[in-house]
Amino acid sequence: MDLTECDGTVQQRVTRVRDSAVSVADDLVVQEMPVSLVYNGISHAVMMCTPCDLEAFAVGFSLTEGLVDRAADIFDVAVERHADSVVIDMTVAREALARIKQTRRTLAGRTGCGVCGIESIDLLDLQPQPVRDSSAAREVSAAAIGRAAREFPEWQNLMRSTGGAHAAGWCSLNGAVLAVMEDVGRHNALDKLIGTLAGRDVDLTRGFVFMSSRASYELVRKAARLDIPMIATISAPTSLAIRIAHEAQMRLVSFCRRDGFVEYCATSALKPA
Amino acid sequence: MDLTECDGTVQQRVTRVRDSAVSVADDLVVQEMPVSLVYNGISHAVMMCTPCDLEAFAVGFSLTEGLVDRAADIFDVAVERHADSVVIDMTVAREALARIKQTRRTLAGRTGCGVCGIESIDLLDLQPQPVRDSSAAREVSAAAIGRAAREFPEWQNLMRSTGGAHAAGWCSLNGAVLAVMEDVGRHNALDKLIGTLAGRDVDLTRGFVFMSSRASYELVRKAARLDIPMIATISAPTSLAIRIAHEAQMRLVSFCRRDGFVEYCATSALKPA
Repeated sequence: MDLTECDGTVQQRVTRVRDSAVSVADDLVVQEMPVSLVYNGISHAVMMCTPCDLEAFAVGFSLTEGLVDRAADIFDVAVERHADSVVIDMTVAREALARIKQTRRTLAGRTGCGVCGIESIDLLDLQPQPVRDSSAAREVSAAAIGRAAREFPEWQNLMRSTGGAHAAGWCSLNGAVLAVMEDVGRHNALDKLIGTLAGRDVDLTRGFVFMSSRASYELVRKAARLDIPMIATISAPTSLAIRIAHEAQMRLVSFCRRDGFVEYCATSALKPA
Repeated sequence: MDLTECDGTVQQRVTRVRDSAVSVADDLVVQEMPVSLVYNGISHAVMMCTPCDLEAFAVGFSLTEGLVDRAADIFDVAVERHADSVVIDMTVAREALARIKQTRRTLAGRTGCGVCGIESIDLLDLQPQPVRDSSAAREVSAAAIGRAAREFPEWQNLMRSTGGAHAAGWCSLNGAVLAVMEDVGRHNALDKLIGTLAGRDVDLTRGFVFMSSRASYELVRKAARLDIPMIATISAPTSLAIRIAHEAQMRLVSFCRRDGFVEYCATSALKPA
């Protein structure tokens, strides 16, 4: 972890205008920086990223993009920081490298981006396998979702200081928030979370992901690859996110608040009165 | 325009939970679909997009990514709709095609994505030229920004029906909202707006862009290529957005509300009291 080197913010002199009052202040802004992901010397992707927790990001990205099957296939992660960019040099198992080469793509993601450089729509991989075991998702009660929604903001440090970061959290089946990672990009936040959980050897079939963002297709696609049975988001889902969740037999709930949510994929045990 | 074919929403059966009440309803969800951009038969990019206003999108994308210098260099735009995807076939001038080939990249953007498939950080093009004339931006008063913030939500039809869409608006120097385009991705919304304005032959140096989203680097980079002197956003900016705006000598204001905003790039005439 490189938490000590970066808190994800930069100081910025700003002019604040409120009604007719104008004041100058120093404010904190969320950091956005190109981060290049290199596997065994081969450049694979450039992601626009908040340059904290980059080892977790590298491991999580490799897992959620299906480039490696397990974190142990990544032998080494070296983070090389330059003035305005970062290069992450990974050494991966030979089988993983073959797969990475096969994807034949060069990514350069912006902050909202995740699977870029794919040559055709077919390669977008919009037909996920069902997750291994979605039974746990059905156990998650309305009270548990409400608890996660209530606890989540307390973990959003980067959001609190900058107003510009997304957060991805891991919750137990009873809605306790266990870990949260933040980034200027929602999919990067999820990748950092997955990388962190991989380091802790967490059973991803026994809990759910809580996102501060909308549910777009890439978040659901990434979670499906890791057999995560459920995603909860604060904001709206997209049509494709719903379709992918349906095909992966995942539970998708959005507009999550302390006192309610909307259920999009009918794997839950909820029944209307 | 293909407005009649698509309103950007799909109907979805949902289960709503509020306190202990559970109800089933039909809801509207924002559409997200892969849209492939093809130039003279050569596939260039796949963007995750709300499949409305796709001619405007194609023209705007081509302009903001610097693939063509003027809309007139695009001779034809053919939108071919499939069940789960769209192909936009463009015929462009020979000089434009040479430039497109030179960019040597294949994009596959997710909803938050905009310049993907670039092979190295150098190609991200993070050093913009100053915009042609930023004097108009300095004229935009706090009252004008407040007016845009007040009028803007009335234009956000897709947001109102789905809760999941971003909007990009064009405002006169006195803050009147003149046009708004929406999409599941913020950069797509901006591209649709630019394509729409190109069709109306609007002078882009005499007004400003208002975004419902955060200000991330790609929005500022796209606007800089079109010599737009100012961007106003409802949510926070990123560090790189501020740097690009500074280098392009653009005005960047964020956290825009009816009664205030925060100024990040000091091209304005505002002085603290």
